Amino acid sequence: MRVAVDAMGGDYAPAEVVAGAVQAAAAYGIEVLLVGDKLRLEPLLGPKEINRVQIVPATEVIAMAEHPVQAVRRKKDSSIVRAVQLVKEGQADAMVSAGNTGAVMAAALFGLGRIEGVDRPALMTLMPNPQGYTVLLDVGANVDVKAQHLVQFAIMGAAYATTVLKIKAPRVGILSIGEEETKGNELTLSALPLLKQERLNFIGNVEGRDVFNGRADVVVCDGFVGNVLLKAGEGLAQALEVMVRREVAHNLPAKVALGMVLFLLRGLRRRLDYAEYGGAPLLGVNGVVVVAHGSSRARAIKNAIRVAVEAVRSGLVQTIGAGLAGRSAGGVRTVNG
Amino acid sequence: MRVAVDAMGGDYAPAEVVAGAVQAAAAYGIEVLLVGDKLRLEPLLGPKEINRVQIVPATEVIAMAEHPVQAVRRKKDSSIVRAVQLVKEGQADAMVSAGNTGAVMAAALFGLGRIEGVDRPALMTLMPNPQGYTVLLDVGANVDVKAQHLVQFAIMGAAYATTVLKIKAPRVGILSIGEEETKGNELTLSALPLLKQERLNFIGNVEGRDVFNGRADVVVCDGFVGNVLLKAGEGLAQALEVMVRREVAHNLPAKVALGMVLFLLRGLRRRLDYAEYGGAPLLGVNGVVVVAHGSSRARAIKNAIRVAVEAVRSGLVQTIGAGLAGRSAGGVRTVNG
Repeated sequence: MRVAVDAMGGDYAPAEVVAGAVQAAAAYGIEVLLVGDKLRLEPLLGPKEINRVQIVPATEVIAMAEHPVQAVRRKKDSSIVRAVQLVKEGQADAMVSAGNTGAVMAAALFGLGRIEGVDRPALMTLMPNPQGYTVLLDVGANVDVKAQHLVQFAIMGAAYATTVLKIKAPRVGILSIGEEETKGNELTLSALPLLKQERLNFIGNVEGRDVFNGRADVVVCDGFVGNVLLKAGEGLAQALEVMVRREVAHNLPAKVALGMVLFLLRGLRRRLDYAEYGGAPLLGVNGVVVVAHGSSRARAIKNAIRVAVEAVRSGLVQTIGAGLAGRSAGGVRTVNG
Repeated sequence: MRVAVDAMGGDYAPAEVVAGAVQAAAAYGIEVLLVGDKLRLEPLLGPKEINRVQIVPATEVIAMAEHPVQAVRRKKDSSIVRAVQLVKEGQADAMVSAGNTGAVMAAALFGLGRIEGVDRPALMTLMPNPQGYTVLLDVGANVDVKAQHLVQFAIMGAAYATTVLKIKAPRVGILSIGEEETKGNELTLSALPLLKQERLNFIGNVEGRDVFNGRADVVVCDGFVGNVLLKAGEGLAQALEVMVRREVAHNLPAKVALGMVLFLLRGLRRRLDYAEYGGAPLLGVNGVVVVAHGSSRARAIKNAIRVAVEAVRSGLVQTIGAGLAGRSAGGVRTVNG
């Protein structure tokens, strides 16, 4: 298997990206195509890595602040666009980038197209719960969506839970403000009857707390709510650490336990930080694309590559395609810029 | 000062409500009017409490699952409707209820009306951050809102921060998915220019993490997003506790620290649980109304009464009125049922 990695994307590119890619190649027994500036990448590779890690030149870089669609259209030789192209041409089985998320989504949409039946690709992430992880989508690809998009998100999320997480008949819930069917906003109220008609193990409305307690395996929401939730989780975990330090400072016997408390909290915070457990797959495009956090270091890049490898090995794209077969995608293609 | 308390509302009514009311009367030097079934309430009051705590009879109770608007219209002698009436008639300065939230909102809206310039009353809560608390609204009164409603929420939230929390020039942010002005959904993008025109210390878009890090003193959002966020915070704190227990179980030296860790986490979880720090004021109605969590025990009821007392003493309703003076409220009256 070959994974194309955008070597120029992210706050710590290219050094940390290269390091993560080298680790992943060894750990997962795969080849990595590092896409980017050859002159900068070569010095970062040792001689023994040349077999498993190859450089594919790309002369341009899309910056984090650039307008995604414009940048993708203009910079044909950027590392993001080239990495997507490698997937399109069959030279890579998947691509991973910690660069401009909007640009990765736009490049994937233009370059790979959508799976039949998908109007809107969605970014997915895993939220920790005491039993494992909950699939949450969309977490930012689409800020304003329609009921049928939530249905597609549900089918794609269930496909991920089944194929990658190996959960049989994953419980799918729609994020709302109460369990009763009458609770919700216009979007969720209109999506509810549609979701009931699908061949899903649909459990109805779930609430914010259910994202973290394991009541559902898959939770669908619009990308605005999902993104707020994702970042709120990160923020709360960080705040907890600060607050624990504060409480301990006023409590002499507790100081003994401080190191242990912080160690535990950091571990839990890492589980909340999606970069740590592997980046966010972009579901619904015709290929495996994984978006890593912009602040990814080597370990996060390695994990994002692992997610890509798991998606390829489990046949995720084919499963999503089968789940949505027979639907005609009628939505407008949009990418949040 | 006199506070009317719905003695029949909440999972632990009337015993825990009465206990909390008695504590509050002593602690804050106020009188409490306990509204509810006289025969059930009398045995719960000791002889020495009769001066500070009086019973106001109400023969009906609105159940948690009842349709709010219908129940309020039908049950004129319910504890919720009667408690609101006491405020309306000037016999009480504020009312507190742990009962059916929608019914409290409907009763307040019908009974007290809106402050001039307010289209939609909003439920407000305090989220913990390392420096103190962040005012978050709306957390569930309005699921689908328009840009001008977010502006009113901002003015009301700033009034709360100024008068009750004594924060000068509170920093007001709008909850979105990125700090850049181009990020957001239709609602937030249309509210942004309106918020800039107000006499507010407006800091623009904030993200989910900023609700917990103290970057803003007031964060506004629609009631769907706010409610999801509120419950997600509760759920995450609960999950953290379970996960800490789990990690410690696999880690022998850590067991020593377990008691301390759990003690700290529970303290932090309490800060997240709005019932513990006093219930959610309903801002925008023409009177002080505080909604306590349905699972409130005596301590939570006492805290909710404290919030009501603080709101009355600080002149919250008048400050909100001054902040919105001159606006004509044109929205439709709706209560989320």
